Amino acid sequence: MPPDSQEAVDWLSVLGLLRYASPRRLTHVPVALTPYCAPQHLLKTVTALSSPFQLLMHRVADDWAFLEDTLGTAARHDDFLQRLFGFRLRENSQPWRLLISRNDFFVVPEGAGLGLRQVEFNTISASFPHLAERLFRFHQLLYRNQPDRLSVLLPNDPLTPISTGIAEAVQVHGASNGVVLMIVQPAESNRLDQRGLEQRLLQQHGLSTVRATLADVAVQGKLRDGTLRLGGERVAVVYYRAGYTPSDFVHPDAGAGRRLLEASDAIQIPDLAMQLAGMKKVQQRLTSLEVLTRFVSESQAAELLEVCAEMHSLDADSKDAEFALAEASKHPERFVLKPQREGGGHNVYGAEIVKLLAEMPPEERSGWVLMERLHPVPHDAVLLMDHQSQSLRCVSELGRYGVLLAKGNEVRLNKDAGYLVRTKGAEVDEGGVSAGYACLNSLVRER
Amino acid sequence: MPPDSQEAVDWLSVLGLLRYASPRRLTHVPVALTPYCAPQHLLKTVTALSSPFQLLMHRVADDWAFLEDTLGTAARHDDFLQRLFGFRLRENSQPWRLLISRNDFFVVPEGAGLGLRQVEFNTISASFPHLAERLFRFHQLLYRNQPDRLSVLLPNDPLTPISTGIAEAVQVHGASNGVVLMIVQPAESNRLDQRGLEQRLLQQHGLSTVRATLADVAVQGKLRDGTLRLGGERVAVVYYRAGYTPSDFVHPDAGAGRRLLEASDAIQIPDLAMQLAGMKKVQQRLTSLEVLTRFVSESQAAELLEVCAEMHSLDADSKDAEFALAEASKHPERFVLKPQREGGGHNVYGAEIVKLLAEMPPEERSGWVLMERLHPVPHDAVLLMDHQSQSLRCVSELGRYGVLLAKGNEVRLNKDAGYLVRTKGAEVDEGGVSAGYACLNSLVRER
Repeated sequence: MPPDSQEAVDWLSVLGLLRYASPRRLTHVPVALTPYCAPQHLLKTVTALSSPFQLLMHRVADDWAFLEDTLGTAARHDDFLQRLFGFRLRENSQPWRLLISRNDFFVVPEGAGLGLRQVEFNTISASFPHLAERLFRFHQLLYRNQPDRLSVLLPNDPLTPISTGIAEAVQVHGASNGVVLMIVQPAESNRLDQRGLEQRLLQQHGLSTVRATLADVAVQGKLRDGTLRLGGERVAVVYYRAGYTPSDFVHPDAGAGRRLLEASDAIQIPDLAMQLAGMKKVQQRLTSLEVLTRFVSESQAAELLEVCAEMHSLDADSKDAEFALAEASKHPERFVLKPQREGGGHNVYGAEIVKLLAEMPPEERSGWVLMERLHPVPHDAVLLMDHQSQSLRCVSELGRYGVLLAKGNEVRLNKDAGYLVRTKGAEVDEGGVSAGYACLNSLVRER
Repeated sequence: MPPDSQEAVDWLSVLGLLRYASPRRLTHVPVALTPYCAPQHLLKTVTALSSPFQLLMHRVADDWAFLEDTLGTAARHDDFLQRLFGFRLRENSQPWRLLISRNDFFVVPEGAGLGLRQVEFNTISASFPHLAERLFRFHQLLYRNQPDRLSVLLPNDPLTPISTGIAEAVQVHGASNGVVLMIVQPAESNRLDQRGLEQRLLQQHGLSTVRATLADVAVQGKLRDGTLRLGGERVAVVYYRAGYTPSDFVHPDAGAGRRLLEASDAIQIPDLAMQLAGMKKVQQRLTSLEVLTRFVSESQAAELLEVCAEMHSLDADSKDAEFALAEASKHPERFVLKPQREGGGHNVYGAEIVKLLAEMPPEERSGWVLMERLHPVPHDAVLLMDHQSQSLRCVSELGRYGVLLAKGNEVRLNKDAGYLVRTKGAEVDEGGVSAGYACLNSLVRER
């Protein structure tokens, strides 16, 4: 029997598992009261994939020609992508790159058993590393009197490797008393997750964090000898929790702020190339063995391909596009249409796909990819939203955090960093926790 | 310059410094953004007073004749006091007593300098031991970039000695797998403070806590061989966070629940005698050297008297009463009229004193004491309430937690356990944080 909602909200509050419902109203984050159970062998596989995928993305990000080739056409019709390309400088002022990634998967039926399919690889602003750890503590407290459940709950602490990675980047950067600059949205409802990281950086590594919007950087930032200074502090590392979506550039100063960061010698999480490497069109191209083997060994490529979903380019010059468009118009329920965007709410499903493709000027199709619609194995769960719990048929998305610190072939750090589970009603298309679609969850291994 | 309110609310949320504004609405607790500064020598004095005051109260509680003599007349006209006396059993089923106290003081002008005056000694349900520790962490984070402020902030961690005291009581009780029974009010807006203690007991001592109202105990509790069982668990220790106010006995089963606890061999925090020893009439009697020396040495008595406020009995047979009543009617602004109650909102001030005493049947006066109105030294502070901060002329009440575990002359534990500061506008009479009158605060020592 799951615990009662009131007790659950108590523990969520004690642990700071909260968000802003509005600027002056706090509420608990939506959570699942029943941890998600995944087969042990898949958990092992998915954990082992963090390093290879990160290394792949590092090599992709190092191949600017490949990024231009993959995204160039789309950028011509996509203001946001074009803007990102526009930030590129002739000379890269900082060769080191820190990646804090989250590799998101569904567990799907495969043959007679179960398999994994990658939903997406997040290279920027991978959220919830703090709340994910708190959620593990939450389930620990919730099931404190049920030893059989407690013993299979999988420990989770993404902040330790993530904050250690950031501290190592600060050291690599070398500025004495260098601080971490966190680029934030002006009114971020999920900023308590960010505060948790700030707290950890301070208490575990004695590192100060300065929060600023891109526009703040434009106004307050100064470059001196290549180093960015902000409010009297030297910025060693820039951590983007904004700058991944067009609305982050609506402010007239935001672009100037982003350019200043690009011109500085701060180590960026992630740098521009890595942000671009996280685009769906790149993911789509990496579903081909031929392309994959440009970056990794054939055996490694085969391993990665095992978890790749079927994806189609809609570029006019793609051999695949015509077939894919025909399939999508016949069986739209089999596909998801995805733009080059991060964050929830952008994807298009079912009949809307046909409608949108019909209305869209053909040259704009290049900005989208068509992905097979994945059918994660459904399971029962109890969800707690706005102080009320309900039992529901659900699906869960399993993400693995990872940290990579590298400069070309010099890879100083490349490791898995824990997990995030988001559980939502099986009938819900989108998956954002902050958007209220999905619930944070923990993992239990099979008993 | 104090930090901005938004950042402050962020940290309060991350640290779980919250309360329920209504059953389904969370809000941050009201806090002062500017820690309270008290003279070093007074901080030393007040800390050193925890043990002597606890030992005094332990001896008072062991003297049932004294309690009856002091409170008997009042109990005749006070249903609540009468009810408490009614719970007394011929035979005490558990000789051990655990006291978790809070000794509350004001810093007041004294001669050319400053002195301390005791406001009250809380023997039951001393609240905020968890939030007090969190608040210290809050101010640490708030002033993380101001080393001069940070270095004078006084560390505070009441939960460590308190949970250790409870764990020791469980051991003394001896039941294997004994649990802590926390007696709670059915809808406690401050229950996150209680959850913090539960969490600590579990994580630091492996102790389970069962929460129940007095009525729950009546319905679910069973005595077997003197030991109370509730939900299959053996209760080693009962911790009262309810049962201190008449409304806790409105439920028709509450009295039966309280009686069951009294009949059990559980160690109570506090036992009935200690609860009664916390009444204002006892405090008033203990302001006399003659009475004090019945319990402690003359030199010890003199030391305690230094911090006692002027208090008057209103018993008909008191030599003092007539003079006190005359004074109160001439100068009501110099007094506070206090009943035998815990929790905020019961005290009477100024002109209301004259009115109430005039309306009251003379025999009911015995239920009240007249205390000099203390004038704590005012100071400036920034208070944060409901997401908004304001600078205000304030006064602060300084409480010291204490833990005592004893059986007659066998005192196993008697120590100070950290502090609580509550800061409120200088014009506000009452002081409850949960009632919204006052703000939690931390201490800084003079620089």
